[in-house]
Amino acid sequence: MYKAKIWVTLRQGILDPAGQAVQKGLHSQGFGGVRDVRMGKFMELVLDATSEREAAGLVRETCERLLVNPVMEDYTFTLEVHG
Amino acid sequence: MYKAKIWVTLRQGILDPAGQAVQKGLHSQGFGGVRDVRMGKFMELVLDATSEREAAGLVRETCERLLVNPVMEDYTFTLEVHG
Repeated sequence: MYKAKIWVTLRQGILDPAGQAVQKGLHSQGFGGVRDVRMGKFMELVLDATSEREAAGLVRETCERLLVNPVMEDYTFTLEVHG
Repeated sequence: MYKAKIWVTLRQGILDPAGQAVQKGLHSQGFGGVRDVRMGKFMELVLDATSEREAAGLVRETCERLLVNPVMEDYTFTLEVHG
């Protein structure tokens, strides 16, 4: 089995209202030194795969089919042997 | 300036209904090899700080005051010089 760690981030140029809300919240709490906030997702998947190549294929397929919106988001991932 | 990359994950033992929903969705799409899914957050902050030490202090303070729920979540972060 493999564990995949997947980062999903908004593409550059895509507006991030959640990030702006967090930044505003931080400013109102006195954290004026926070210049920019971008929010993303982080997912950990445990995969039943017999090789790293198979696991990587599964991650790409799940990301492209369900987990990531390719119009607005980018993703990167790492794999490690699990269990 | 520094850029902080922050990963927020649910603590072990904390139920993850969003992760379960994603896993169910993947199974119903034919991805039966996905054994476990845990959802987390990923945030990128640009910080006005003059040293890595100052930036790290700012990240810890913002996480503990606003960005992370210490009862349910853990966080880790990395820092890099930005701009």
